[in-house]
Amino acid sequence: MNADKVLKLFSGELRAVNEGLESFAENLIQEGGKAIHVEWRPPAGGDAKAIAALDALSAGCSVDVEAANAEAVRRILASKPTVVGIGIAADVVPGMAKDLILHAGPPVRWENMCGPLRGAVIGGILYEGLAATAAEAEALAASGKIRFDPCHHHNAVGPMAGVMTSSMPVWIVENKAFGNRAYCTLNEGLGKVLRYGAYSAEVIERLRWMASELAPILSEALALRGELDMKTIIAQVLQMGDEGHNRNRAGTSIVIRELAPHIVLLDRPKAQLSKALAFLNANDHFFLNLTMPSAKCTVDAAAGIEGSCIITTMARNGTEFGIRLSGLPGRWFTGPSGVVDGLYLPGFGPNDAARDIGDSVITETSGIGGFAMAAAPAIVKFVGGSPKDAIDVTLRMYEITAAENDAYQIPALDFRGTPTAIDVRKVVETGILPAINTGIAHKEPGIGMVGAGLVKPPENAFRDALIAFAEKYAQ
Amino acid sequence: MNADKVLKLFSGELRAVNEGLESFAENLIQEGGKAIHVEWRPPAGGDAKAIAALDALSAGCSVDVEAANAEAVRRILASKPTVVGIGIAADVVPGMAKDLILHAGPPVRWENMCGPLRGAVIGGILYEGLAATAAEAEALAASGKIRFDPCHHHNAVGPMAGVMTSSMPVWIVENKAFGNRAYCTLNEGLGKVLRYGAYSAEVIERLRWMASELAPILSEALALRGELDMKTIIAQVLQMGDEGHNRNRAGTSIVIRELAPHIVLLDRPKAQLSKALAFLNANDHFFLNLTMPSAKCTVDAAAGIEGSCIITTMARNGTEFGIRLSGLPGRWFTGPSGVVDGLYLPGFGPNDAARDIGDSVITETSGIGGFAMAAAPAIVKFVGGSPKDAIDVTLRMYEITAAENDAYQIPALDFRGTPTAIDVRKVVETGILPAINTGIAHKEPGIGMVGAGLVKPPENAFRDALIAFAEKYAQ
Repeated sequence: MNADKVLKLFSGELRAVNEGLESFAENLIQEGGKAIHVEWRPPAGGDAKAIAALDALSAGCSVDVEAANAEAVRRILASKPTVVGIGIAADVVPGMAKDLILHAGPPVRWENMCGPLRGAVIGGILYEGLAATAAEAEALAASGKIRFDPCHHHNAVGPMAGVMTSSMPVWIVENKAFGNRAYCTLNEGLGKVLRYGAYSAEVIERLRWMASELAPILSEALALRGELDMKTIIAQVLQMGDEGHNRNRAGTSIVIRELAPHIVLLDRPKAQLSKALAFLNANDHFFLNLTMPSAKCTVDAAAGIEGSCIITTMARNGTEFGIRLSGLPGRWFTGPSGVVDGLYLPGFGPNDAARDIGDSVITETSGIGGFAMAAAPAIVKFVGGSPKDAIDVTLRMYEITAAENDAYQIPALDFRGTPTAIDVRKVVETGILPAINTGIAHKEPGIGMVGAGLVKPPENAFRDALIAFAEKYAQ
Repeated sequence: MNADKVLKLFSGELRAVNEGLESFAENLIQEGGKAIHVEWRPPAGGDAKAIAALDALSAGCSVDVEAANAEAVRRILASKPTVVGIGIAADVVPGMAKDLILHAGPPVRWENMCGPLRGAVIGGILYEGLAATAAEAEALAASGKIRFDPCHHHNAVGPMAGVMTSSMPVWIVENKAFGNRAYCTLNEGLGKVLRYGAYSAEVIERLRWMASELAPILSEALALRGELDMKTIIAQVLQMGDEGHNRNRAGTSIVIRELAPHIVLLDRPKAQLSKALAFLNANDHFFLNLTMPSAKCTVDAAAGIEGSCIITTMARNGTEFGIRLSGLPGRWFTGPSGVVDGLYLPGFGPNDAARDIGDSVITETSGIGGFAMAAAPAIVKFVGGSPKDAIDVTLRMYEITAAENDAYQIPALDFRGTPTAIDVRKVVETGILPAINTGIAHKEPGIGMVGAGLVKPPENAFRDALIAFAEKYAQ
């Protein structure tokens, strides 16, 4: 700019367009100037390695990434999650064994486990009869005689602590389009429950009743009714104010009405059947443990596609949050679990909260849950915020996804399909992180749920995954 | 305007603001001019008598109309509709008798009844065993030996044809705040059903099964469970995509999940219980026959308040649409039933449609149904339009109502209460008619449902009511 132009510029009225620090614009306005602030951040938050990875990937790859992602999208959209039955984990979950405890999230050693996960492990050991007291269970867990493994390494998922032990009953959900299966325990309800790290006698007794009565009843009723088409049911509940992660009142209602005509026919004491139906009616989260394996077998069908940078796993163990990419099978990319911003039950506050935990973010990974919050405005009474926030969350997720779901539609968005199939490049480039809504566990073992809210995953997990993806595929 | 000003006006660029006929603005724009059209119509559509009535009422009344309306609003909002049981019409509905057939809407004689109402009357006579064939039933109906009366004259309501005969089972809904009760038959499902004017053997057999098995099962289960708090349930279903008139999937689900744990305990053959539960599961409109008497006992509590111009009844018999005002008890104001604008089932079209029929508009009268369409965007798949239309319908209804419901809230409107308590003055002054969504019956007797949509009530019914109100109360 030459001096004349500079003079001319400053002789007229100055109107500034400000990028970067918002305070620059604010200062100008305070001084009587005119300025507008443009929301802008550099790609990948200015992270040099991530920018280099993005550049390298756009310069050229050894495989056709767009075609690979299109195949991942095709498989996700073509998936047909279907509840085919209930089994015992040891009988149906690949690799399950008496000395093995599955947990939520990426791998984690006992010494690094958070309070609620430790609590759930203690409860799992007590439930299996491997120890008689909590102290004994804790010693056993620390002894090295118990093996720990992520649910995700066994085609399984678990909400919150996500603890699955060998004699627990599990839902079997099959992806009818591709034949793969996913497994999940049955939901225990809210309050003092194993998945929130509680392990008192009432927790263990409830789990025993679920295995001895509830699961057989549901299994027999399901056999009479026939398989449950979860794709159709999830599509329906999105029209009924659910989003399939933290609001499941409609889904639970539909499962009850579909099974009740068959439960009533079972050759069991009426009081047993009534107790089972009353338990379902009292637990609106029951459906969560069906949306989760439905989502799991859906995104699993898109895993292992050479050259695809679609995210096929997101999961947290309360210590770390981790993701896996379709084109980098078997590799976890992790960062510290986030602090949940939410609403607390009476008597609890942020100081009581454990960090973000659970495999339930598999719902978001598949395009429902937080990604479908616009379908569930009433969820803000549970996780905080306003109905407009819920809509904004969904709208933002279209920025980081590769497709819109053709089956899962949001009435309030004129039946637009939910944002589906997260492209890690878009997450890193825009800095828009996947929206996750979640329950909050108490940070100490043995207590349970204290609230629910929204949480941000750690950005570095996505950057590290992108960099590794570029290392493998960029030319 | 003097000549100078006129010259000045026309020497510059002309930009017109157009009121009245929109074509004036269109002509200007076609000629290259600039014009905007302002949506405007004179108060009361320019009707001189209605304007005079509005003027007279604002000049002064013999009673405090605002206080009377406030009392009507207070009673509507304080109402606590509660399902207390099931009875046989002859035993519980005031004035019910073997030779009496109740029907929807304002009074109508046999010779003026529309096709579907005649069909339902024929079916009702066959169901009661008063005739052996449809021809005999028709002759009996025309003979004068059968009395006809509106449901509304017997604390009852009925969807579509709304036919209730003496031996039919009915829901008993009590307004716990005021002690008054309302009655409604049990919903038969969709397709070929009595309320849509069908009367074939399958229709009558289903009604017999409902009386002999379904109603006793529900009645016994209800006795075990205890009363159903409809106010709480309706508040919930508005968070689940229902509006309580033509979308009732959530409400039906909640009734099933609340009753199933008790149905399973009944001392009856399992197959009977299973059939009852399967029937409920197959019929998403089952809940309609519970929202209707809930709405009825709610607005009935506000009827008969000296000086109140709140509408406490809207109802249609397929020939006429009628309303009643709180401050003019016992008087109907009617106009011709409207033609429904909607979606048709395959094989049917507008030429097959009967005119607007049914007491189900009691839901709108109480502030749900069409007035709560913003809570049920998915309903547009049933009645037509877009989700935005559904929101606009609700927003428009705030213009003609006196209150916002404190219990019934709409998540998509940031939990704003539904527009409640229609003030006939506002309807007449603005020309905004109550929004009604409805099913469409075939115009011939014996066929059944052919579609669903939205319908406008006749404006003159509201004007006539206002004029009568002014005659009684204006000084």
